Amino acid sequence: MRRGFYIGRFQPFHDGHYRVVEEIAADVDELVLGIGSAGDSHSTHDPFTAGERIMMIRQALADHELTVYAVPIEDLDRNAVWVSHVQSMTPEFDVAYSNNPLVVRLFEEKGVRVEGSPMFERDVLEGTEIRERMVRGDDWAALVPDAVAAVIREVGGVERITQVAETDTSIDE
Amino acid sequence: MRRGFYIGRFQPFHDGHYRVVEEIAADVDELVLGIGSAGDSHSTHDPFTAGERIMMIRQALADHELTVYAVPIEDLDRNAVWVSHVQSMTPEFDVAYSNNPLVVRLFEEKGVRVEGSPMFERDVLEGTEIRERMVRGDDWAALVPDAVAAVIREVGGVERITQVAETDTSIDE
Amino acid sequence: MRRGFYIGRFQPFHDGHYRVVEEIAADVDELVLGIGSAGDSHSTHDPFTAGERIMMIRQALADHELTVYAVPIEDLDRNAVWVSHVQSMTPEFDVAYSNNPLVVRLFEEKGVRVEGSPMFERDVLEGTEIRERMVRGDDWAALVPDAVAAVIREVGGVERITQVAETDTSIDE
Amino acid sequence: MRRGFYIGRFQPFHDGHYRVVEEIAADVDELVLGIGSAGDSHSTHDPFTAGERIMMIRQALADHELTVYAVPIEDLDRNAVWVSHVQSMTPEFDVAYSNNPLVVRLFEEKGVRVEGSPMFERDVLEGTEIRERMVRGDDWAALVPDAVAAVIREVGGVERITQVAETDTSIDE
Amino acid sequence: MRRGFYIGRFQPFHDGHYRVVEEIAADVDELVLGIGSAGDSHSTHDPFTAGERIMMIRQALADHELTVYAVPIEDLDRNAVWVSHVQSMTPEFDVAYSNNPLVVRLFEEKGVRVEGSPMFERDVLEGTEIRERMVRGDDWAALVPDAVAAVIREVGGVERITQVAETDTSIDE
Amino acid sequence: MRRGFYIGRFQPFHDGHYRVVEEIAADVDELVLGIGSAGDSHSTHDPFTAGERIMMIRQALADHELTVYAVPIEDLDRNAVWVSHVQSMTPEFDVAYSNNPLVVRLFEEKGVRVEGSPMFERDVLEGTEIRERMVRGDDWAALVPDAVAAVIREVGGVERITQVAETDTSIDE
Repeated sequence: MRRGFYIGRFQPFHDGHYRVVEEIAADVDELVLGIGSAGDSHSTHDPFTAGERIMMIRQALADHELTVYAVPIEDLDRNAVWVSHVQSMTPEFDVAYSNNPLVVRLFEEKGVRVEGSPMFERDVLEGTEIRERMVRGDDWAALVPDAVAAVIREVGGVERITQVAETDTSIDE
Repeated sequence: MRRGFYIGRFQPFHDGHYRVVEEIAADVDELVLGIGSAGDSHSTHDPFTAGERIMMIRQALADHELTVYAVPIEDLDRNAVWVSHVQSMTPEFDVAYSNNPLVVRLFEEKGVRVEGSPMFERDVLEGTEIRERMVRGDDWAALVPDAVAAVIREVGGVERITQVAETDTSIDE
Repeated sequence: MRRGFYIGRFQPFHDGHYRVVEEIAADVDELVLGIGSAGDSHSTHDPFTAGERIMMIRQALADHELTVYAVPIEDLDRNAVWVSHVQSMTPEFDVAYSNNPLVVRLFEEKGVRVEGSPMFERDVLEGTEIRERMVRGDDWAALVPDAVAAVIREVGGVERITQVAETDTSIDE
Repeated sequence: MRRGFYIGRFQPFHDGHYRVVEEIAADVDELVLGIGSAGDSHSTHDPFTAGERIMMIRQALADHELTVYAVPIEDLDRNAVWVSHVQSMTPEFDVAYSNNPLVVRLFEEKGVRVEGSPMFERDVLEGTEIRERMVRGDDWAALVPDAVAAVIREVGGVERITQVAETDTSIDE
Repeated sequence: MRRGFYIGRFQPFHDGHYRVVEEIAADVDELVLGIGSAGDSHSTHDPFTAGERIMMIRQALADHELTVYAVPIEDLDRNAVWVSHVQSMTPEFDVAYSNNPLVVRLFEEKGVRVEGSPMFERDVLEGTEIRERMVRGDDWAALVPDAVAAVIREVGGVERITQVAETDTSIDE
Repeated sequence: MRRGFYIGRFQPFHDGHYRVVEEIAADVDELVLGIGSAGDSHSTHDPFTAGERIMMIRQALADHELTVYAVPIEDLDRNAVWVSHVQSMTPEFDVAYSNNPLVVRLFEEKGVRVEGSPMFERDVLEGTEIRERMVRGDDWAALVPDAVAAVIREVGGVERITQVAETDTSIDE
């Protein structure tokens, strides 16, 4: 039995994430998806709550035979203890999948095996693109699994990000 | 579709919890299990990490047809914001199941529907009893699902609680 | 112009507090009432929110000619920085009134003038007595100003403390 | 009896804020002024402590017949629990006044009634303008109530913002 | 070159600690002394600030040829990340010295070598005894190095613990 | 006996810091070096842990006759309590050395004597320059004491900063 770990903010969980999961699925029996910045929501950078992101992941992968654990990871803002924090919140894993140099470095310094892949690199761009399309009123649904689009509609996600995008100051100016 | 919420520390997830889940399962289509005090571990009161408790829950309910979400909830230590914190970390739920008067009060003040049951009351006693049996070397495995016993053995849980039970001072006296 | 400072948890603001304020009023032109443990609520030790305690104080002293500032002070749990924390959250004051030896010590180490009075000592007992009467269903209203009793009734305070008093375990056992 | 809520950083409380309060005063019997980012001070963006800002508000509105509560709100940095945090720190209110899209969204998702007004929009600009004038040595006092100017002078506010404005690095570079 | 680690609250640094350091000194070239609960002070359990404890350690070991690092460790209240926290705040060490079962367990789970000794066990008792003697007015100085007694006198330590020992309620009752 | 205080991030401790220490050494008997942003590490702005920075300082000043205390100071992000925080973590000092206007202001408002010097100003530039040279592969070692270069090589510092410099997104995008 081999269990992998893959972290993302999943704002939202999109087709790029889905392809990464599929690629990792060929290597592992189970996969832990760490939902990063779990406490952040209601901003253009992080529109969805951790609970909403859990729904996206579970619905998008419902028919996938891979056993998936979707686990919120709250920010600690201490790089030096981040690996221990992640390990305490998640089922034990054998390998972490990442192309993020900081994540790779932190895991390697703690002796965790890390694997990367050129495919991962497109993820970031897609998240930003999708959120910008939501704000502009363009077609974002084409870039996410159908189940994710349904979750976003159910929670009024497009309305939310469009509204908070008009904010140009802090909450209390 | 109806989704319920049930919170516990699940130190460990035991037969009493299992029976509660079965009872709730008759009422709901999906169930969110909030893993309380998620950041606590390695003490006699809270021996297991959140990740280990996720494993217990998932393994114990693997063959159950109910859709279950096991979600760690870190302590905020602010009763007045606890409901919002829970709601942000979990998929939206229609009803919370609890017999804990504080939990009932907090949910009701925020307009969340709560249901109780006499069956729930035995949970707390069972958790304490199981942890004490572990420390004393008595038979604890009879009180938890087989899958949970397997997880506890895999992570060396009995060794851990037995060792930390010898601590009678704080970490740094 | 002379401004005083007096800290309490005010759970609730009762006749003993009122008499202390009256005594201090003879010495100062303005009084800052620091509402301690501002983040705590919904427990038998701390039933009321900071906002509810602000209401109690303002209503109880509405007809008093003394200028009063009721300011919530969230716990920092660092004795060594507590005085600076209080000073940053409150209008500048010339003298602190307290009989609490820890409070006296902390202020004096930072060079703040402190004055005490035997009258202050009954406060603590009264707060505990009032909360116990609420839980037992005895007459608590006789020990608080009428305006405070009205606030407590308006927020359902007796119901709340009675309900949470039944809790004998943590929020998530 | 109708109570309103209005949040700002009030760095400092200026004529724009005063006009907003006057406009709201026509609609409500009491007004809670939430002092945002209460823990921030001694920077060009947030020069004044919460205590100093309480003084500005109380002095500026001393002759106003509206009952005003000036309440410091410390940052929680969790949008999803922000409304509960505000509600726990303040007297209960019926309506929040805001034109900030994020604030409006957060309140509306929690079922709090929100009202806006074109007049509010000039607030932000005025705060920035006043702080820049202080640093440049230009006339800032014309943009704040006289009582606020007096408070700023008493605490040495212009000296402070001028001095910290020379800082171009973090506290410990 | 071999570097050891030894953690204590050092409230105060006493003869028992001194003997432990001497025993460890036979095994290592350098020793890191972690000052636990660094943020706690001004209570009967933790009377001295981290800075005062640094002084005690440095003065008591000034003539010792062992290279000693006295490093404050603030509480994180997360056992699962405690080892990473300690490692990030201290020079890298080869072996941790402890008889505290929790400390031993936490280090061992992270693969850090731990060594114990029967001599260590008297430390805790001595700390409590010394603090009680200070409060009772008995001879405490006989149980600490002369240099430590001098530091305690310089900071008014006996006065401080005697004063706060009279506190029987929280800071803001 | 006169003790000074000087704060820096010391990322890394370089020749500019060394010269400042030498200049201050002419005025004091002992010097406390506060290691700011102690919890930050593994970024291009803050590559080294507090423990690694302690090593740099102790090694670089090992042969210096000045008594030096290297003390990590974790960020509190509250300017108004920063001085109290520093004072609680450090041995008592008579004078703070700084050219940072914010640091000077904070100390002066709390009545701490501050002294500056034109020489201090080059520090910041040198820290940035050194970190950029590390990333670019240029000669950085010429700008730090030999002992510091040895520490950086021992912990793999150049590899670390080079690796994390490739990160252009947050840890969990």
